[in-house]
Amino acid sequence: MRAAGGVSGPPVPSNGAGELLQLLRDGRPRTRAELAKLTGLARSTVGQRVDALLATGLLGPVGEAASTGGRPPVRFAFNPQARVVVGADIGATHGHVALTDLLGRPLCEIAEPITITDGPAPVLDWLATTIERLLTQSGRDRTDLVGIGIGLPGPVEHSTGRPMQPPIMPGWDRYDVPHHLATALRLDTGFPTGSSAGSPGSATGPVPVLVDNDVNIMALGEHAAAHPHVQHLLFVKVATGIGAGIISGGRLHRGAVGAAGDLGHVAAPGHAQVLCRCGNTGCLEAVAGGPAITTSLHAHGITATSNEDIVQLVRSGSIPTAHAVRQAGRTIGEVLATCVSLLNPSVIVIGGSLAGAGESLIAGVREVVYGRSLPLATGDLQIVPATTGRQAGVIGAATMVTQHVLTADRIDHAIATQSMSHAASATA
Amino acid sequence: MRAAGGVSGPPVPSNGAGELLQLLRDGRPRTRAELAKLTGLARSTVGQRVDALLATGLLGPVGEAASTGGRPPVRFAFNPQARVVVGADIGATHGHVALTDLLGRPLCEIAEPITITDGPAPVLDWLATTIERLLTQSGRDRTDLVGIGIGLPGPVEHSTGRPMQPPIMPGWDRYDVPHHLATALRLDTGFPTGSSAGSPGSATGPVPVLVDNDVNIMALGEHAAAHPHVQHLLFVKVATGIGAGIISGGRLHRGAVGAAGDLGHVAAPGHAQVLCRCGNTGCLEAVAGGPAITTSLHAHGITATSNEDIVQLVRSGSIPTAHAVRQAGRTIGEVLATCVSLLNPSVIVIGGSLAGAGESLIAGVREVVYGRSLPLATGDLQIVPATTGRQAGVIGAATMVTQHVLTADRIDHAIATQSMSHAASATA
Repeated sequence: MRAAGGVSGPPVPSNGAGELLQLLRDGRPRTRAELAKLTGLARSTVGQRVDALLATGLLGPVGEAASTGGRPPVRFAFNPQARVVVGADIGATHGHVALTDLLGRPLCEIAEPITITDGPAPVLDWLATTIERLLTQSGRDRTDLVGIGIGLPGPVEHSTGRPMQPPIMPGWDRYDVPHHLATALRLDTGFPTGSSAGSPGSATGPVPVLVDNDVNIMALGEHAAAHPHVQHLLFVKVATGIGAGIISGGRLHRGAVGAAGDLGHVAAPGHAQVLCRCGNTGCLEAVAGGPAITTSLHAHGITATSNEDIVQLVRSGSIPTAHAVRQAGRTIGEVLATCVSLLNPSVIVIGGSLAGAGESLIAGVREVVYGRSLPLATGDLQIVPATTGRQAGVIGAATMVTQHVLTADRIDHAIATQSMSHAASATA
Repeated sequence: MRAAGGVSGPPVPSNGAGELLQLLRDGRPRTRAELAKLTGLARSTVGQRVDALLATGLLGPVGEAASTGGRPPVRFAFNPQARVVVGADIGATHGHVALTDLLGRPLCEIAEPITITDGPAPVLDWLATTIERLLTQSGRDRTDLVGIGIGLPGPVEHSTGRPMQPPIMPGWDRYDVPHHLATALRLDTGFPTGSSAGSPGSATGPVPVLVDNDVNIMALGEHAAAHPHVQHLLFVKVATGIGAGIISGGRLHRGAVGAAGDLGHVAAPGHAQVLCRCGNTGCLEAVAGGPAITTSLHAHGITATSNEDIVQLVRSGSIPTAHAVRQAGRTIGEVLATCVSLLNPSVIVIGGSLAGAGESLIAGVREVVYGRSLPLATGDLQIVPATTGRQAGVIGAATMVTQHVLTADRIDHAIATQSMSHAASATA
C-alpha cells in the first residue's frame, strides 16, 4: 500500500516481513516464540515471515536458545554481512570511499587526492573505478551491492542527486550524478535517470545511488555511530567553511530545497564590516572559519597555511592560536545559541577539520551557548566533539543507503519480486 | 507490531484497515475496484477492510459510480462527521474551546475570559464544564468524543501533558493536565495517569488528552488549514511574546524537551543594552514584542495600552506606529534570516495579535530575510500572514488530536478491540 520510494513497478502489498526485520535490526538474536510474543502475531505468521527473511540472507540462524526440553529452538538475528554498501565522501581535494556492511561499518577503504574543480566526469569516473577496486579487494560480487551513497561539498537536491548552485564546484550545477555513476558501473538504480534494464546489477534489484551534501552525511554518520538513540541532534562542521546537519525526530531535516543547515553565511553578531566571498558581509564563516583564524594569527606573526597547521599549533601549545580558536568558538556559539532556542536539540556535535583543535574550540562554543540560551533548553544539552573523525563521511554516506534500502516497504518489495533471493542462494 | 502510542494493552497486529483509511482521508470517494487498483491488494482483502471501516462509521457509502452495466458499484469516502474532537486554546486571559469534526473544522465554539494565574484547578474545571456545554449544545453524545487537544501559554512536555517551568503560569509547573481533565470529565484517556476503567468514556475506547504550547498548536492549525501539503513551514507568533512553531517533513518539531521554537529570548543583533524579564539582555521579545513597540510609541507622545491598540493605530493611518511596527518586523527578520538558513522552510507564516497590523510588520520581516539569506534558500520562500486568525489555536489543538487518533495503528487497534463499533451502530 505504501509506495516504496524509488522502486519501479506497481506497489506491492505489505507481507509483514520487512516490519519484522526492523525489530531485528537491533542485532539481538530471538527465537520464533520470542518474536511471536514481542509482536503479538500468530506463531504461523511469524514462521512465514522468518522463512521469507531467511531466503534473502538478511536474517540468519545463530546459536541455540535455552530450552525446557526436546530439540532446542533456533535463534535468528539480522545478518549485516549479507550485502555490502558503498559510502563515498568527496571533498574539494580528497576522495574517500569505503565498502561497508549493512550497519555502515567499513570493511575496506580507499582515500586519494582528487580535484573537485576538474568537473563531474573525471571525478565520478574515478569514483566508479574505485568502487570496482574495492569490490575486487574484498572479494564481493557486484550482485552483493545494495546501494551507493555519496557526499559532495555543496548543496544537493537529494531527491534527484543533483548539486544545486554549488559555489566551489564549477561544472557540477544540476549535473545528474546518479545517472553518470550508474552508467559507468552499468547499474540499474531504480530511478528513471539511471535505467539500464538487463544489466548485471539488476539481479539484486535496483541499486540506488543517493547523494547529499557533505555536512548532512557527516551528521548521519556521527548520529549512527555515536548517538543512535538521540532524537534531536545538531552536527556542526567547522573547517574552511562552516555548516550544520540537523537530525529532527531521528531523521535528517533537509529543508525545502536541501539547503537546511547552511550556517556559513548567517550574520555573526558584531562583525558587520567583514567581507565574505558570497557577496554579503559579516558571515559566520568569514569571521570564524579556518581562513579567518589564519588571518588573525598573521597579525601575531604566526604563519598557518591550512586548518591542519592551526590544529598543530594549538596542540604544540601556541597560546595566541588557542586564543584565536576559542574566540572563533565563541562567535560560532553566538549563532548556535539561536539554533538551540529554535531546535532544542539534546546533543550538539562539533566536527570538521578544526574540531581537532582540542578543547579550545568547543570551550568557546559552550561558554556562549550556555550563557545565552534559556535554562529549559540547555538543562540537558550536551556539546561534544565528533568521534568518527575522518570516517564520519563514509559511514554517513553508507548509513544514508541502509536507511533507504532496509525500510519495511523495500524489503517487502524485494521479497515479493524475489529480487534478493538469487544473491542469497549464491552467498548462502 | 508497531506499538500504538498511548494505547494500553498488548500490541495488536496490523489488519490493514487503518492504512486503507489513510489513503481515503483525502476525502475522495472511491469504489472497491478503484481501491484494489490503487493499493495493489486483492479485491477480497479490500472488501474485508472496507467492511471493517464501515463498522466504525469512519467510512461511509456516498452516491453511485458510473457503471458499465448491472448494479452500479458503491463509492466510499471518509466520514469526518463520524466523531467529534475538542480543541482548546487557553491563553493568559482568554479561553477558546471548539467542538470540531475529524478534519478539525469547528462545529460550535465558546470563548470566555479566564485568568491563567488563578492556577490549574479553576481553569481546567472551567474547561471541563465548557466541553460539557459544547456537547450538549451540539447534541453529540460523550461516546462520540475521540480526544481533547489543549494549547497552553508556556512550554509543555508533550509526552506527559505537563507544563515545564512556564514563566507566566504560577502553580502550573509539572501539573498533570490530562489527569485533572480526565477526572473532571470521567474519561478513560488511555494514559496511566488518567485511568478510570468502566467509565462512560470507555465505550469508545480511550479518549486521549493531548497538551502542547500555544505556538505549536497555532502552527499545526495554520499548516492544516492553509498549507496542508507544505513539508517545511515556520509559524511565527508576534504578540506580547514572540515564538515559533516548526513543521519539519510535515510534522511538528518539538525538540528534546518540547522547548523548540522559543525565539523570544534569542539575542536580537544590536540591542545588547535592552533588559528582558528573563534576566538576560537584548532578547528579541524585549526589543520587538508588543510592549517594546508601546514604549517606542510613548516617546512619540502616542499612547497604546495593548496590541489591539497598536493594530488600530496602524489601521487608522498613524505613520509613527507603522514605522515602529515595521522596525519590529526588521528586528524579527534578523533572527528569522538565521532560522531560514538553518531550516530552509518553503513558507514562513506570521501570526499572533500584532500580525493584524497589515503589511507593516511583514514588510519589515521580508526586507531583512530576503536581504540576508542565501539565494538558494529564499528563491521559492514565501513569507505570508496567517489566515486562520483567532481560530488557529482551536483548529490546531483539534488537528493535534486527529493526527494522533486517526493513525493506521490506532484504527487497527480500535477495530481489533471493537472499541469503535458500539458508537458506530448508535450513530448509524
